[in-house]
Amino acid sequence: MHLKDLKHVTSTRQLEDTEILDELYAITDDMERRDSRHDLNRASLRGRLLANVFYEPSTRTRFSFDAAMQKLGGRIIDTESAGHFSSVTKGETLEDTIRIIAGYADVIVLRHNVTGSAMRASSVSDVPVINAGDGTGEHPTQALLDMYTIKRELGRTDNYTLSMIGDLKHGRTIHSLLHLVSLYPNVKVNLASPEELKLPEEYKEYLMIKKIPFEEHFNIESILENSDVLYVTRIQKERFSSLEDYERVKGSYIINKESLWKMKKDAVIMHPLPRVDEISPEVDTDKRAAYFRQAKNGMYVRMALLQSLLKRKNGNENSY
Amino acid sequence: MHLKDLKHVTSTRQLEDTEILDELYAITDDMERRDSRHDLNRASLRGRLLANVFYEPSTRTRFSFDAAMQKLGGRIIDTESAGHFSSVTKGETLEDTIRIIAGYADVIVLRHNVTGSAMRASSVSDVPVINAGDGTGEHPTQALLDMYTIKRELGRTDNYTLSMIGDLKHGRTIHSLLHLVSLYPNVKVNLASPEELKLPEEYKEYLMIKKIPFEEHFNIESILENSDVLYVTRIQKERFSSLEDYERVKGSYIINKESLWKMKKDAVIMHPLPRVDEISPEVDTDKRAAYFRQAKNGMYVRMALLQSLLKRKNGNENSY
Amino acid sequence: MHLKDLKHVTSTRQLEDTEILDELYAITDDMERRDSRHDLNRASLRGRLLANVFYEPSTRTRFSFDAAMQKLGGRIIDTESAGHFSSVTKGETLEDTIRIIAGYADVIVLRHNVTGSAMRASSVSDVPVINAGDGTGEHPTQALLDMYTIKRELGRTDNYTLSMIGDLKHGRTIHSLLHLVSLYPNVKVNLASPEELKLPEEYKEYLMIKKIPFEEHFNIESILENSDVLYVTRIQKERFSSLEDYERVKGSYIINKESLWKMKKDAVIMHPLPRVDEISPEVDTDKRAAYFRQAKNGMYVRMALLQSLLKRKNGNENSY
Repeated sequence: MHLKDLKHVTSTRQLEDTEILDELYAITDDMERRDSRHDLNRASLRGRLLANVFYEPSTRTRFSFDAAMQKLGGRIIDTESAGHFSSVTKGETLEDTIRIIAGYADVIVLRHNVTGSAMRASSVSDVPVINAGDGTGEHPTQALLDMYTIKRELGRTDNYTLSMIGDLKHGRTIHSLLHLVSLYPNVKVNLASPEELKLPEEYKEYLMIKKIPFEEHFNIESILENSDVLYVTRIQKERFSSLEDYERVKGSYIINKESLWKMKKDAVIMHPLPRVDEISPEVDTDKRAAYFRQAKNGMYVRMALLQSLLKRKNGNENSY
Repeated sequence: MHLKDLKHVTSTRQLEDTEILDELYAITDDMERRDSRHDLNRASLRGRLLANVFYEPSTRTRFSFDAAMQKLGGRIIDTESAGHFSSVTKGETLEDTIRIIAGYADVIVLRHNVTGSAMRASSVSDVPVINAGDGTGEHPTQALLDMYTIKRELGRTDNYTLSMIGDLKHGRTIHSLLHLVSLYPNVKVNLASPEELKLPEEYKEYLMIKKIPFEEHFNIESILENSDVLYVTRIQKERFSSLEDYERVKGSYIINKESLWKMKKDAVIMHPLPRVDEISPEVDTDKRAAYFRQAKNGMYVRMALLQSLLKRKNGNENSY
Repeated sequence: MHLKDLKHVTSTRQLEDTEILDELYAITDDMERRDSRHDLNRASLRGRLLANVFYEPSTRTRFSFDAAMQKLGGRIIDTESAGHFSSVTKGETLEDTIRIIAGYADVIVLRHNVTGSAMRASSVSDVPVINAGDGTGEHPTQALLDMYTIKRELGRTDNYTLSMIGDLKHGRTIHSLLHLVSLYPNVKVNLASPEELKLPEEYKEYLMIKKIPFEEHFNIESILENSDVLYVTRIQKERFSSLEDYERVKGSYIINKESLWKMKKDAVIMHPLPRVDEISPEVDTDKRAAYFRQAKNGMYVRMALLQSLLKRKNGNENSY
C-alpha cells in the first residue's frame, strides 16, 4: 500500500509494511528542512480547511495539527472541547456530526473518549478522518512521530534495542508504536514496568508472532547500558490501589543524571510528554534527550500526512 | 430593498419582498458551483476579519460561519463561549463589548441568549452585525438557508405545500422561515404538532394576514402524501410536564421507511439538525432526505452573505 | 536599547529610556494610517504563527492580539483557557509547555495567574514571549497602548497633568503605566482613590526617585479642572470588607456629564475597560472620551510590536 492510497488514518494496523512509512518520512524530512530554511510552500494547502473535532481536550495534539495545517497555508475550524458541543448535548450521533462537518471541511481530526470512534467516523465521512486518539484504542499519529524520531535520532530503523519504561499497560502510545517497530527487522525490545503496569498478554503474543525478541524487567538498572532507545512513559498515581504502592515503585523508573552515566553515548531518550517526575530536568540539556525534538517532529509528520491526504487531484489552482 | 443596502442582518422581517433573496441566492448558487470546481476566489475577503461573539455555544453555526469566511480568504477571531467572556463577567454591557470588537473586526456574528440582543448590538456597531440566534427571537441565516434549500431541492419557491412537523411553538427556525415562505405566491402550509407545541396564535394570524392557507393536524399520516416539503423539527423532552406525555406524542411525529412509501416521489425532507429520533437513519440514503445538503447550503448562503456585506467600497486591493 | 534588540516583552521595566517607545509608536502610527486606508501589508507576517497560551481567560486581550497578528497576514494557534490545558492538569511545568509550543510557533503570548511567569517562560523559549498579564505583576502591552493613547490624543508626552482615579492599589495597569510616564519630562501626577485603594508605598517612592511631583486626593472634584489626562479605573466590590464601605466610596469616583463641564476642553478621558459605573454612558459621545479609541490603539500597538519582534532576518521570502 502506498501513501496515495491512504484515505483515512484510523490505526497503525492499516500499515502492513514500511512502504507508506518510507514515503511519509521522506516528505517529513523535506518539511523539516524547508521549515528550518523558512522555505515552506505556503500554497500547498491554501484554501483547504481542517476541522478539529475534539470530544475531550488535548491541547498539545490540537496545537500540533493546527500549526501543521497553517504552516502549509491551510485553515482551521476549531473546537477546544466538543464535550460542550451543543448538538452533541442535544443527543446527536457521532455519525451525524461527522457527516455535517465533512460538508464544511476538507479533513477531520477526531479526538474521542470512546474506542473505535475514528473507524465509525471514517465510515460516514466524505473527507479524510485522522484519529487523534480514541479511548484506549489508537493514536496513530503519535506512533508515526515516535517511529520518525527513532529513525531520525538513531539514523536507522533496524538493528537496535528499544527499551520501553513505565506504564506499559494503559499507554495507547506504547501499543501503537510496537506495531510500527515490528515492521522493521532485527529489533530487540526490553519492557521495564512495575508488576501492576506490565504490557498486556495480547501485545506480548503479538511480539512473539512477529518474532521480536523481548525481555521483561522490573527495574531499569540492567537495561540502561545496552539500550539504543529509551522510551519513557508517565506512571500515573491513579493506576495504583494505594499511594504507598505508587510511591514504592515510582522511584525505580526515573531517568536522572546517574542514569545518563550508565547509558550508551549515542542513546536516544524519548517521552510522549507531558512528563512529570520520570525524567529529571537535569537530563534536558544532555544531547541524548530527544523528547522536545520528538514533540516538534510531530508537527512535521502531521504536515507530511496532511499534504499527502489533501493533495488536490483536480481544480483550478491558478484561481487562488 | 437591495442586497447592497443591507447593513446588518438581525431579522428576516427586514425583508419585505424577494429582491434581496433573489440576489443572495444567485450568489449562493455561484458559491456552490465554484466550490465544487475548487474555483473559489480566495481573494474575495482577504484581509477581512470576522469576530464570533457567542454568549451561548452553538458549534454548528460557528463552524458554518468560520468555514464560510475562510473559504473566501477571510480570517476569524473566535470565542467558543462568551459566557466565559472575562469582561462580561466583570459587568460590561453588550454595547461596550460590541463597540470594542467593532474596532478590531470587519463583521460581527452574534449569538446571544436574550431576545433583541442583535438589534441592540447593531445600533452601536460600526461594522455589520449578523444575528446568529438571539433568545427566542430570530435566527435569520437559518431561515435564509432553509428557504434556499427549498428553492434548490424543489426547483421553485411558489406553488407547493410545506408541512411543518414537530415543535412549532418554540422553534425560532419555524417562525423565521414562515416569514420568508410568505414572500412567495401560492404556498399551502400544514402544521402538524402535539397540542402542547402548536404554532402560537400570533404566527397563525400572520399567515391569515398574508392570505396563506394553512391547516393544523395532530398527526402526520394525512399530510405525508400531499406534501412537497416536509420540515421536521425536534420534539424536546423538556417541553412536556411529564415523561409519559412526551412518550405518548413522540412516536406520532417520526419519519421512517413507512413514511417514505406514502410520500411524493419528488418530496423534500428537511431538518434544521441536530436530529434525535424524529427521522430514522434508514431515511438518510433516500434521495429525498435533504437535511445534510441543507446543512451544507448553510455554508454557501453565509458565504454569499459575508461577501455581500463586506464587499470593499474603497482601498488599495493591489497592496494585498 | 533599540526595538531591534528587544527579544521578549515581559515588563515595562525593560525600557530605560524612550528610544524603543519612539520607534514603536512610529510604526504604530503607520499601522493605523495604513489600516484606515485598507492598505496594510498582509505579507508582513505571512507564514508566521502566534500561539496564545492563556492560563486564565482574557477575551479582550486575546482578541486584540489575534486581530493584530492576522491583519498582518500571520496565523494563530489558540487556547481560550489553558486551565483546561490537558497537559497542565497532568502536572506539566510551565517551562515544558513553553519549550514545546516554542517548537511550533514563532511567538508566544502568555497570560498567567502567577506573577513572574512571563519571565520564567522567556528564559526557556527559543521564540519571543509577550507577557499578556501575569498575576499581580505586569501587563506591558496595556501600558504601551495607554502611553500611545496619551501621545496620540494629547499630541505630546511631556508637560501635562495625569490624574489616576479609582483602584490604584491592585491595578497592574496603573503600575506599569507609571513607569512609562516617568520616562518623559515634566509630568505631574494626581492620585485619587479611596483610602482602601491607595497607590502602594513602593510606587510612591518610585515617583519620588524619578522626581515626579504627585498629590494624593480622596475625591476627584479638585482635580478635574486641571487634569490633561484622566485615567479612570474600575473599583471592584470584592476589594471592600463590607458592601456599605463600597457603596460609600463608589459614588465619589464617577465621571458623568457634570464632570465634563468642569474638565478642560481638550482633556482626555481614558479607561482600560471593561467599565461598569465609573464612567456614565452619557460621556461616551463627548469627544474627550478616548476609551474606545484606546482599545483600538491596543490592536495597532500590538501589530507594531509583532512586526518588530518577528521581522525575518533571513529566509526565502519569494517562496511564499
